[in-house]
Amino acid sequence: MTTDPLVIFTPSGKRGRFPVGTPVLTAARQLGVDLDSVCGGRGICSKCQITPSYGEFPKHGVHVADDALSEWNAVEERYDRVRGLTKGRRLGCQATVQSDIVIDVPAESQVHRQVVRKAATQRDIVMDPATKLYYVEVQEPDMHEPSGDLERLCKALKDQWQIEGVAAPLSVMRKLQPVLRKGGWKATVALHKDHHSKDHTLVDIYPGFDETPVYGLAIDLGSTTVAAHLCDLRTGLVAASAGIMNPQIRFGEDLMSRVSYAMMNKGGDQEMTRAVREAIDQLTKDIALEADIDPARILEAVFVCNPVMHHLLIGLDPVELGQAPFALATSDAMSLTSTELGLGAMNAAAQIYILPCIAGHVGADCAAVALSEEPGKSEDLVLIVDVGTNAELLLGNKTRVLACSSPTGPAFEGAQISSGQRAAPGAIERIEIDPVTKEPRFRVIGSDLWSDDEGFAEATKGTGISGICGSGIIEAVAEMRMAGILDASGLIGSAEMTGTPRCEARGRTHEYVIYDGIANGGPRITVTQGDIRAIQLAKSALYAGARLLMDEMNVETVDRVVLAGAFGAHISAKHAMVLGMIPDVPLEKVQSAGNAAGTGARIALSNIGARSDIEQIVHQITKVETAIEPKFQEHFVNANAIPHATDTFPNLSGIVTLPVVDYNQKNQGDGGGGRRRRRG
Amino acid sequence: MTTDPLVIFTPSGKRGRFPVGTPVLTAARQLGVDLDSVCGGRGICSKCQITPSYGEFPKHGVHVADDALSEWNAVEERYDRVRGLTKGRRLGCQATVQSDIVIDVPAESQVHRQVVRKAATQRDIVMDPATKLYYVEVQEPDMHEPSGDLERLCKALKDQWQIEGVAAPLSVMRKLQPVLRKGGWKATVALHKDHHSKDHTLVDIYPGFDETPVYGLAIDLGSTTVAAHLCDLRTGLVAASAGIMNPQIRFGEDLMSRVSYAMMNKGGDQEMTRAVREAIDQLTKDIALEADIDPARILEAVFVCNPVMHHLLIGLDPVELGQAPFALATSDAMSLTSTELGLGAMNAAAQIYILPCIAGHVGADCAAVALSEEPGKSEDLVLIVDVGTNAELLLGNKTRVLACSSPTGPAFEGAQISSGQRAAPGAIERIEIDPVTKEPRFRVIGSDLWSDDEGFAEATKGTGISGICGSGIIEAVAEMRMAGILDASGLIGSAEMTGTPRCEARGRTHEYVIYDGIANGGPRITVTQGDIRAIQLAKSALYAGARLLMDEMNVETVDRVVLAGAFGAHISAKHAMVLGMIPDVPLEKVQSAGNAAGTGARIALSNIGARSDIEQIVHQITKVETAIEPKFQEHFVNANAIPHATDTFPNLSGIVTLPVVDYNQKNQGDGGGGRRRRRG
Repeated sequence: MTTDPLVIFTPSGKRGRFPVGTPVLTAARQLGVDLDSVCGGRGICSKCQITPSYGEFPKHGVHVADDALSEWNAVEERYDRVRGLTKGRRLGCQATVQSDIVIDVPAESQVHRQVVRKAATQRDIVMDPATKLYYVEVQEPDMHEPSGDLERLCKALKDQWQIEGVAAPLSVMRKLQPVLRKGGWKATVALHKDHHSKDHTLVDIYPGFDETPVYGLAIDLGSTTVAAHLCDLRTGLVAASAGIMNPQIRFGEDLMSRVSYAMMNKGGDQEMTRAVREAIDQLTKDIALEADIDPARILEAVFVCNPVMHHLLIGLDPVELGQAPFALATSDAMSLTSTELGLGAMNAAAQIYILPCIAGHVGADCAAVALSEEPGKSEDLVLIVDVGTNAELLLGNKTRVLACSSPTGPAFEGAQISSGQRAAPGAIERIEIDPVTKEPRFRVIGSDLWSDDEGFAEATKGTGISGICGSGIIEAVAEMRMAGILDASGLIGSAEMTGTPRCEARGRTHEYVIYDGIANGGPRITVTQGDIRAIQLAKSALYAGARLLMDEMNVETVDRVVLAGAFGAHISAKHAMVLGMIPDVPLEKVQSAGNAAGTGARIALSNIGARSDIEQIVHQITKVETAIEPKFQEHFVNANAIPHATDTFPNLSGIVTLPVVDYNQKNQGDGGGGRRRRRG
Repeated sequence: MTTDPLVIFTPSGKRGRFPVGTPVLTAARQLGVDLDSVCGGRGICSKCQITPSYGEFPKHGVHVADDALSEWNAVEERYDRVRGLTKGRRLGCQATVQSDIVIDVPAESQVHRQVVRKAATQRDIVMDPATKLYYVEVQEPDMHEPSGDLERLCKALKDQWQIEGVAAPLSVMRKLQPVLRKGGWKATVALHKDHHSKDHTLVDIYPGFDETPVYGLAIDLGSTTVAAHLCDLRTGLVAASAGIMNPQIRFGEDLMSRVSYAMMNKGGDQEMTRAVREAIDQLTKDIALEADIDPARILEAVFVCNPVMHHLLIGLDPVELGQAPFALATSDAMSLTSTELGLGAMNAAAQIYILPCIAGHVGADCAAVALSEEPGKSEDLVLIVDVGTNAELLLGNKTRVLACSSPTGPAFEGAQISSGQRAAPGAIERIEIDPVTKEPRFRVIGSDLWSDDEGFAEATKGTGISGICGSGIIEAVAEMRMAGILDASGLIGSAEMTGTPRCEARGRTHEYVIYDGIANGGPRITVTQGDIRAIQLAKSALYAGARLLMDEMNVETVDRVVLAGAFGAHISAKHAMVLGMIPDVPLEKVQSAGNAAGTGARIALSNIGARSDIEQIVHQITKVETAIEPKFQEHFVNANAIPHATDTFPNLSGIVTLPVVDYNQKNQGDGGGGRRRRRG
């Protein structure tokens, strides 16, 4: 009696004995080894490539003979001739086991391959998308057994892929008969698996074996911008990224003004729904064009957005979100189709997943941040701040996670700032003010040079110097505070008091001139007392929200601050802390997570299990409602000072010494009126 | 120790002991007694009315005291004052058990009440529709527990009705928030249960307690006409019936000409789909108007139709149904929504159920006939013939059921008949020919008088005598055969040969004049040799189909023939048999089932279990494909004679003696040419 050959797979280490003649793919499947195949072992797809190893393997206790696998067969020879097989590789479905063998599964042959998400944190996304391609061979129709083409396709999926419960939307049904005939009863189908029911939807069908990639969109639907990543659903790689302005801006700059528009104008909500859906269609076309793909190959989309955007996207009147108790029509995650959402640019049967909302003010975008940043898995206490038009905050660690939203308004995005503009070429994004001369120097988007570097004028000739963006205004205000141009109460001193002619009178207050391009036909870019007030309101709201969560968590400090959002990626930790936007922590403990909401969307697009995860996670997050919490007002008022009226910032003090100035004592007009009158 | 009171329900006989103070409704629910309630026991809906019985019940071994139930309470008093409670009745949710009691549940308080379907067969439909109303009280939103309104509604359904897995389409989501607020967080919801998954869909929501009936449509979508019944989903009663011509007729009279239209004209299938959907919308509006209801209260529709109509309804190109192997795109039953089908007149979230097709030629209409007539439950061997533009046949008994379709063409409907018209006032529907005088008398639709009755002219003045309908032409041909005007080969004799001047020459053949209204400005209604040929083709196809099924079943006779279809209701058994349309059986064994397909649709609408039943039944039916069966041609040729060339009709011979005539021997032109040449 001889024993069957031993088959050992690396890197998994899985092993088992199989009869001589067993295809490697069959052995891998029986052992649960992660070896890909789209054609089901027919030698068509070449996804099951493996690398056999020969010789002695003391570690595994085997010797692998040169003829441990069957010789190359005709299928492998043809494949090699036509498409080229990497040296040393075999097709797992063709090569059969002859004697003990060690087989390596290269990364690109693994279904659940890992995609490095970002270098900074080395976090990975494991590819296990809801939508996958399957090659099937369907029985031809037979008058004596008159089942429908769909029923025979379903039978093929059951027999060849062990997939049951497949439903086909009417739009796909229309293609079914011609495609099956065109492909000679062979077809590649895209199936979407529902993460709850495990049922499948037939999203599309292609004749014969079709390995053209299929794609998903991860869409971050913000109040101001709509940003999308086009992801290859097999590899997880981003094929293209694009953004578009949210056209709802014409109905209102911020969320509450859009809710008001819906309240005041009959059908206004539907107008806004139409507008945003059209924008998503445009974005879909743009991104497909950029990646040079057929938009009908976009078979899935995942949306993250705040609650008002959420309701307007799915076509619900957001009016209840504008008044206490801020009731969502629905808070759970939603699975829809592009047709139901009226999105016409992607595949007509594309499957849409919208992440769950956490509360009436804390949306699916915050859920996506939670999915990406995983505060509930953090050992230390982390405060995650997603700064957009509204700010969402998450505070937590392994024991508990809290969330709230804070009405910062759009000042941090450069809106409602006198020289403000969105982050685009020509916008001032970095600024430094010399504490002695009080002279500024700055950088604009589009050039790496500082304004006092040689060649700056030349480098910025194309873009000009057009305004100041969100991160620029934060740096400007913080630098003004550090240079003694601004006092702790937020008052800009006069030229006389500050010793710089750049502090010019403007009515009864002062403004600081950063750049005067009038002589050259350009703008005059200043920071006005009004700008300071807008930033103060925004940062007070943000800080008060953080404090409210800290109260609820019963802590006085946090261990770590993560700044999320495109904006968070661009602001300097030091400046944010000088401004008192965030609680005092060691500077190195302030991290940027980039567009964490967008990353969360990509995770949910790439991994079906992440959908169940986040749906469970949001139920474990404790929501804190800022609007009804009396302490919020108190925290807000105390946070008005720069950096803060009562909280000490010991870590900040270790790095920066803020000038002790007070421009209010000298009766500098009405700008600081509130404080003056209170003290007077 | 005392034992709890005994509660006995009639007519079910269910009994159990319950603590003093238990509401009767609670006892009924715990025992599984079929006692209705929409409001869940809140004393609002009054559906749970019961009749207590008092005194001695030797059969049950109990004595019921006068105070066996609690006294009338305020809820019952108010209900009686406002709406009136039938004497002796109590509200089951208010009356509580005090001592042993016998309680009768009247029929109208049963959920699963039986609706008498038709007097003829005394078959019942048990009401258990997929869509039902439920009253719920929903928790108000709370900022500290910020779930969505939908999630709280679902929780209420789970807590108050033990219903889980409820999904809401976006169109209903839009109503959710305003309706819940309007009803003060009380609402009546219409839920549709999927008969496979048991999941529910929220079809509509109404503020507060709303007992306005909700409806379903049972639609028989025929090639020529679309017929609908509007059924109250609670009572099962038909509130209105209506019909409309199928506007696809303008693309082709019969099915194959419509398939041809789709093949020859790009987008032709979509044109036909639009046309039929518009007609269904119009029919929906008509029927709602007739019943004086809001069409948005139509929450469900069930469709039965042949395969070509099926594909055109759901928007699929029927081209494959026009050529072997007649592959259906899908054969299984379908569950859709009115929005998916583009039906705009009923509720936007109305749930559509389409019965399964049996084969490429045997559609959901035939499945509906099987559901209604249940050949698979028959003790004797029954042949069911559904005569429409095509004929579908079912042959079976408890052991086995066979099905086929036979291409009769539209002659039986009066189409392609020289004086033919559809069954409408003025059409000749009955005819008798005196075998001695060869003189006809007839009746037209709209009058009960015969043409030789006094007052006939007066009675038909309004309608006129306009043509001859399907049942009329069958009687005419059979009567001509019985009167010796027509020979067994189907040749009309000349005036000389038949002895009546009503046999007039028409070219080289003859026609029989039934009515000549030319002098009065009316039509001249005749039966031409061409008409005879059309009827012969149709009846040969029908008979050949039946014989093919009998061959497959290995029988020479059947026990019983059921004629289904509106047409089947109007033709006389004797005439059908003289013609040789159906196999020879005793005349009393020929039964009419009326519109059995429409009845099948009503059954599927009224009883959710019937959907699973028919889906299982169709898989057990053996399909026989007439088009590829060589014996079909042989049977067809033999069936060309009237009644038949080879089969004896012993039962018919016992009633009718057909004249032995042969008009072919005398060389009567080309009309009988085929036979003549073969014999010559």
